[in-house]
Amino acid sequence: MAETITLYGFWRSLAAYRVRIALQMKGLPYREIPVDILTGEQHGADYGAVNPEHVVPTLVHDGRTLFQSQAILEYLDETFPDPPLMPTDAAERAYVRAVALVSVADAHPLVVPRMRKRLATQFGADPAAVEAWGTHWMREGLATYETIFTRRPPAPFVAGETPTIADICFASHMAASSLAGFTREFPLCARLAETCMAVPAFAAAHPMKVPGAPA
Amino acid sequence: MAETITLYGFWRSLAAYRVRIALQMKGLPYREIPVDILTGEQHGADYGAVNPEHVVPTLVHDGRTLFQSQAILEYLDETFPDPPLMPTDAAERAYVRAVALVSVADAHPLVVPRMRKRLATQFGADPAAVEAWGTHWMREGLATYETIFTRRPPAPFVAGETPTIADICFASHMAASSLAGFTREFPLCARLAETCMAVPAFAAAHPMKVPGAPA
Repeated sequence: MAETITLYGFWRSLAAYRVRIALQMKGLPYREIPVDILTGEQHGADYGAVNPEHVVPTLVHDGRTLFQSQAILEYLDETFPDPPLMPTDAAERAYVRAVALVSVADAHPLVVPRMRKRLATQFGADPAAVEAWGTHWMREGLATYETIFTRRPPAPFVAGETPTIADICFASHMAASSLAGFTREFPLCARLAETCMAVPAFAAAHPMKVPGAPA
Repeated sequence: MAETITLYGFWRSLAAYRVRIALQMKGLPYREIPVDILTGEQHGADYGAVNPEHVVPTLVHDGRTLFQSQAILEYLDETFPDPPLMPTDAAERAYVRAVALVSVADAHPLVVPRMRKRLATQFGADPAAVEAWGTHWMREGLATYETIFTRRPPAPFVAGETPTIADICFASHMAASSLAGFTREFPLCARLAETCMAVPAFAAAHPMKVPGAPA
């Protein structure tokens, strides 16, 4: 019972961070197996047997292997409904999913290791150019979030009183962006990030708290 | 009543194609307003007022403005349940969402107009290099799909007897890939694409059938 959930993750993975937040929000015990995505461990045959995309995270629950962070978040919410991470109204659910996807489908895919590698091999991008590429897209993502929050201010979370998967995915975007130092350009984002990080699960699951993270 | 659904789309947009399939599967009348993403019409203030990300599609239903294709697909399925585009079992739902996200969150974001533009401005990529970049990621996506389908063959659709949002998102990936001519390298993908295209809604909604598409 205690050991029924295994998360293949890594401290640096923003997508794994999302899943850790949900697991901790739900109070679910889990075991995390690190897959070092900086050295390319995800490309090995062993991990390929676990995850056909060779990416983290993968969640194993009761013998079922689940992949793609947003699919895992919804699975956890449907399987362990308390506390809920999704609203009940269809239009609100669509809003929450869309806000989550700004990070999951639009910003984050552009900065993952396979992108960085391809920029180097196809265009000869040096580390500084790769970094500039990543910073550009993280800032674009934050600018989009700031516009969204200007039209509908978080109150105090994206969809109201309690955190949803929108806040979880936003927080993952912010965890990376805050390292880049430009988050003060986006005051509504900065305030929402503070609200999120005051939630114990968001703080405890943070990348820098994961074993293996730099001191 | 007939005119309650407006889709801001474009013939070339794979994400708009997904939404058109769902609308036609559900038998919902809609009006499509083209936003020319090849000339940059999406970056204008007019469309920015509709969509904070300046991307297509946007769906307007009963005064609600919805964005992000996967969020729109789930909204349509929750609001108009017949025929269902999602399974009922939580693990099956997670599988369907994950297979959809292989396109929505991993392959497609790497080939959209803003990416192509950034490759040109940051790395001086010429049109052939941009094309090679796109082909690389579309092929990577297909290789992932082929691995997924080898482990669990479509029967005949991704999750069984009827199409789901997994098939819809796969079909959007395939619509672009088939133009590139390498789909025969992936026989399970090619067979599933044939199965999908035998569904009237998938065929009728195809990018090349949309007003404005090249003859």
